Amino acid sequence: MRAVPWFLASSLLVAGTLHAGPRATVIPAKAIAAATQLREQALASNLGYEITESLTTEVGPRLAGSEADAHAVQWAQAKFKALGYDKVWLEEVHFPKWERRSEHAAIIGDHAQPLSLIALGGSPGGTVEAEVVRFADLASLEAVPAGSLAGKIAFIDHHMERARDGAGYGMGSKVRGRGPSAAVRAGAAAYLMRSAGTDSHRNPHTGITRFDEGLTPIPAAALATPDAEQLTRLLALGPVRVRVALDCGWDGEATSYNVVGEIRGRSKPGEVVLIGGHLDSWDPGTGAIDDGAGVGLTMAAGALIGEMKQRPARTIRVVAFANEEQGLYGGKAYAARHIGDVGKHQIAAESDFGAGRVYAFRSGAPEYAQGAVKQIADVLAPLGIAHTPDEGGPGPDVGPSATQGVAWASLRQDGTDYFDYHHTPDDTLDKIDPKALAQNVAAYAVFAYLAANADGDFGSEAKKVTPPQE
Amino acid sequence: MRAVPWFLASSLLVAGTLHAGPRATVIPAKAIAAATQLREQALASNLGYEITESLTTEVGPRLAGSEADAHAVQWAQAKFKALGYDKVWLEEVHFPKWERRSEHAAIIGDHAQPLSLIALGGSPGGTVEAEVVRFADLASLEAVPAGSLAGKIAFIDHHMERARDGAGYGMGSKVRGRGPSAAVRAGAAAYLMRSAGTDSHRNPHTGITRFDEGLTPIPAAALATPDAEQLTRLLALGPVRVRVALDCGWDGEATSYNVVGEIRGRSKPGEVVLIGGHLDSWDPGTGAIDDGAGVGLTMAAGALIGEMKQRPARTIRVVAFANEEQGLYGGKAYAARHIGDVGKHQIAAESDFGAGRVYAFRSGAPEYAQGAVKQIADVLAPLGIAHTPDEGGPGPDVGPSATQGVAWASLRQDGTDYFDYHHTPDDTLDKIDPKALAQNVAAYAVFAYLAANADGDFGSEAKKVTPPQE
Repeated sequence: MRAVPWFLASSLLVAGTLHAGPRATVIPAKAIAAATQLREQALASNLGYEITESLTTEVGPRLAGSEADAHAVQWAQAKFKALGYDKVWLEEVHFPKWERRSEHAAIIGDHAQPLSLIALGGSPGGTVEAEVVRFADLASLEAVPAGSLAGKIAFIDHHMERARDGAGYGMGSKVRGRGPSAAVRAGAAAYLMRSAGTDSHRNPHTGITRFDEGLTPIPAAALATPDAEQLTRLLALGPVRVRVALDCGWDGEATSYNVVGEIRGRSKPGEVVLIGGHLDSWDPGTGAIDDGAGVGLTMAAGALIGEMKQRPARTIRVVAFANEEQGLYGGKAYAARHIGDVGKHQIAAESDFGAGRVYAFRSGAPEYAQGAVKQIADVLAPLGIAHTPDEGGPGPDVGPSATQGVAWASLRQDGTDYFDYHHTPDDTLDKIDPKALAQNVAAYAVFAYLAANADGDFGSEAKKVTPPQE
Repeated sequence: MRAVPWFLASSLLVAGTLHAGPRATVIPAKAIAAATQLREQALASNLGYEITESLTTEVGPRLAGSEADAHAVQWAQAKFKALGYDKVWLEEVHFPKWERRSEHAAIIGDHAQPLSLIALGGSPGGTVEAEVVRFADLASLEAVPAGSLAGKIAFIDHHMERARDGAGYGMGSKVRGRGPSAAVRAGAAAYLMRSAGTDSHRNPHTGITRFDEGLTPIPAAALATPDAEQLTRLLALGPVRVRVALDCGWDGEATSYNVVGEIRGRSKPGEVVLIGGHLDSWDPGTGAIDDGAGVGLTMAAGALIGEMKQRPARTIRVVAFANEEQGLYGGKAYAARHIGDVGKHQIAAESDFGAGRVYAFRSGAPEYAQGAVKQIADVLAPLGIAHTPDEGGPGPDVGPSATQGVAWASLRQDGTDYFDYHHTPDDTLDKIDPKALAQNVAAYAVFAYLAANADGDFGSEAKKVTPPQE
């Protein structure tokens, strides 16, 4: 998951609800019965975990545009085929390539000691040794006069709050996204931030940042929480000089792929229910919770539907999106390529918030389809999932398609611990509870199967929109 | 804390209990009353935490023999003086110097990805790229024929168990101490182990190792737990090649110092109650739980006793021991220097097991002093500390003195979480609960004060012994 999470973007995406379908969308009783059985099968299956284990073990970290990313694309193609998907293909995605080579930092002088930090994605390389000026929050840095930090290192010490819905990441990701530009405007030579995370380990949190147009980028990095606290304690004793040495930066263009697999529908194969996650990851961990889990659980949900005695009416399309982390490139490319097919998308939902249990469900579908949404919610309820009609939006990669009019659903995951590991070296397989992942597989399988069997639609309709600017 | 913890060494140290004092040792009622008040004052004080914060912030990591270690010695001298200690001095300690410069490892080939690892203290540098052979435990590696691992990397995947008393470290430290020599005997080119720790973070655990005499050392390192699991999963899929590159090694001799501070006793200033911790730390963290806490809490206990209206009869001696981590050099040097003073030591106790609450108390004192031990236990009881006459031994640095006949006490700390952080980058101040640390200060202050006021002794008596070989 990257800078603009779905719960912030949701206000963009509630359009289309005034479209009046011919009649209320309904799910047949036979499909409800089959989905109930599917739910229990999925709960008893370890397939989602096994797929996630395979990706994170055999490929490991897969920074977009890297050799490992290409390996992940091969892996996804092969895995879809091995799982019995009927059709598997690639769709090209282009983006600038950013590379990390090394990063070091240390306090200089009387209290000399190393600091644990990680370059932000999009940071240029460079070595800066300078005095640190601390700001408690983003607003404080944005308020300083232009040029007032000339030759200094700007440091934002914002503390991100823990929340089940990840609400604290709203400001956390702003500190990462806007802080560097604010530092440049203030004249700073480098930018440091306390990690946008909720843990207290020596595993700093990376993530993409952007410099506003016309600004000259400066080295930008995140300190691990204990290191941000150490720096803050030392600053309370007097001036502190820090040496930051980053070797990283943009390096040309890269091509990767959205990898798509389909379980063909029995009677309306041209209409699709889309589920998916993103295939790329940040590089320090193995991308288990972000977003190996999303890929694994949606691949598993599709595969379990494919094994049913009777296929659903519509096709289940599972997409492993390319390069979500650096700017939703895969989601945008999908939306651009399929802009003529909006009406063929029954509904879409993405999993990109870790591997915690799903606790809430909604869809932004129009009123005439909310009866069917309620029917789905009733089958999800035994999984501990509440129907929350007013909360949640599409996942980040589904966002651009939703903006174009594709109907969407939200299966909200418990993200209480998500930002302990998100974008850190600690995003590894051991952080996933196989039982919680199976609950996710069950939820996605039920949702996809029932939506694919509905009599009627969920409101997908092409809109004249300008896609959100990155 | 290093390779040989007190709970393993305790069997060496129960001698001396047959010495019969002239009469039962007793603590006067007035002292009991004063200690009860001292206990409450210590519980309400943040001094132990403040001292620990000062050391771990202003000095940070302090590998024995490094510049930071010298800085720590200056810090300790200055801190004793600032705390009002009556006498502060240094005692030289000599040892070989080991340095860490860098360490990298990666899986090579189809599943190429980096591994998080850390060189073991005492490892030579070197770069090895070879196939990995996994062993579930130390015994399995020790059982292979000599030379059978020629050109391979030996990997012991022992899982250390969590326990309040740290019992799992018995085998964990053996895997670290004996594994490398077993690997050399088997012909291996390098040695890897799953960290001797109980966490699952990308923060590997270092610690000292030794190569048996006559063996040619090989690069030896510990993988973080998630990395050991990753390697094990990949080995289940087929042969795995790993590249290990360590830049580290022994580099001449170094001198550091035991730093000693005394609160002079009112009527028997030549007799001392010794408490302390060790000043050095491993380098990846800031040595907060190992053993900044031990130094901070014993310095604070002495200082609080120094502030009492009436000083105890005997002197409180607080020792910040040099280079515990690489072979108890400070503890051995202290024992060697003070071998003629055994009888002047009323009793000794060291804190070197983190910053968790003390839950049990005992002393190896002879029978005639156990009444006084019980009196101390009664004042400790409201702190949640049980009197456990059969468990516990002196701390590692007190061990050599105890072997020479110095009476000792044990204040056992809850180490349930200790091996989550021990010897890792994650051993930082945020892992310490200030209230738990204050409970430790209260326990040490009560113990030291009461022992220093006892009518009679705890059995210190010079013995003809051979100190334990390192």
